[in-house]
Amino acid sequence: MARTTGSDGEKTEAAVREAAVSLIARLGYEAMSMRQLAAEVGVQAAALYRYFPTKEDLLFTLMREHMEGLLAAWSAARPVAADPVSRLAAYVENHIAFHIERRHATHVSNMELRSLSHERLTQVLKMRTAYEKELRTILRDGAEAGVFSIDDTGLTAMALIQMMTGVIVWFRPGERLSLAEVTASYLAMTMRLVGATISHGTARPLGRARDAVAL
Amino acid sequence: MARTTGSDGEKTEAAVREAAVSLIARLGYEAMSMRQLAAEVGVQAAALYRYFPTKEDLLFTLMREHMEGLLAAWSAARPVAADPVSRLAAYVENHIAFHIERRHATHVSNMELRSLSHERLTQVLKMRTAYEKELRTILRDGAEAGVFSIDDTGLTAMALIQMMTGVIVWFRPGERLSLAEVTASYLAMTMRLVGATISHGTARPLGRARDAVAL
Repeated sequence: MARTTGSDGEKTEAAVREAAVSLIARLGYEAMSMRQLAAEVGVQAAALYRYFPTKEDLLFTLMREHMEGLLAAWSAARPVAADPVSRLAAYVENHIAFHIERRHATHVSNMELRSLSHERLTQVLKMRTAYEKELRTILRDGAEAGVFSIDDTGLTAMALIQMMTGVIVWFRPGERLSLAEVTASYLAMTMRLVGATISHGTARPLGRARDAVAL
Repeated sequence: MARTTGSDGEKTEAAVREAAVSLIARLGYEAMSMRQLAAEVGVQAAALYRYFPTKEDLLFTLMREHMEGLLAAWSAARPVAADPVSRLAAYVENHIAFHIERRHATHVSNMELRSLSHERLTQVLKMRTAYEKELRTILRDGAEAGVFSIDDTGLTAMALIQMMTGVIVWFRPGERLSLAEVTASYLAMTMRLVGATISHGTARPLGRARDAVAL
């Protein structure tokens, strides 16, 4: 993909990506035109094509970068040599924080897979699978260590991911609950869902989850 | 809204709704044209307007009927004078069965709210709130009776609904798990998440959840 070097080009490209995420989230990918996007950014349509030769290149870039960002964030947040409970807590905390920060991009990434070419869809799905596998590994390790009680690792991973990503649908900063409170509550629900046996009991998990957030 | 009586008109209207759900799920509402929809159904575009004077009338009808169907299904499935655990099991079972049967309509209902007028959005959201309130009531009754252990009723209701609706993203009939197995597993996860204390223990909830399905 053509990419100008230097800060002006980079700034324009970043502005294009940002405007594209918000336009696609509002209208849907198929309904958004490159002309509309150019108008939003304040450049000629021809300028867009220097950065994204086709509209699908743009969509793929948004989706690939979303998943690369998620994998990088998890890579940075993942505790080394920790027990399954701490690893699961870190996964939940990172997942919620990452997606709350990127509501529109998450929306686009989940809804517009249908518009990717087969080859690119495969690439994006591979990254998703790698990310989900991290969670499945934590769940399996915890079940093997006897600290989680899980019927089906794959199903549990999907249930947790969809429960957590669902936060972006209704959470708005500044309303009844803070992000820390929501995260603590989701951590407590997650630990109960996986049947976690935590040494200091599970009778009042909210306070405990708050501790886990501060790991 | 104009509506022809008699079976031909009704058949056409049903065909329009069905084709619209599948086109909107594929392209997005903004990208779908009434002309395209007419071609899909095999009628003149003018004929569509007898049933749906505007494109938004069509979208609203799809969304309203989806929610009416969900509320009616729950109304029929809701056990009378049952304990909170049985009521929660019935809610989970009905929610998963209803949405698995209507994957595309669920997708449209969740994604295209942005395209409804303010007044109609309010109507649809009221129906959603009524449906979610049923779950919150079950959770609150269970917490008050001491059979559930819940930190935040509202948050738990959202988490459960999003976890359950998420099934439509990945579940395909005929793959590794049957719908009954998936439902049993989600019931077990739900009961653990709400900290349900079931009289015969919670050590192996899958078998127990299967019993609950057959209530």
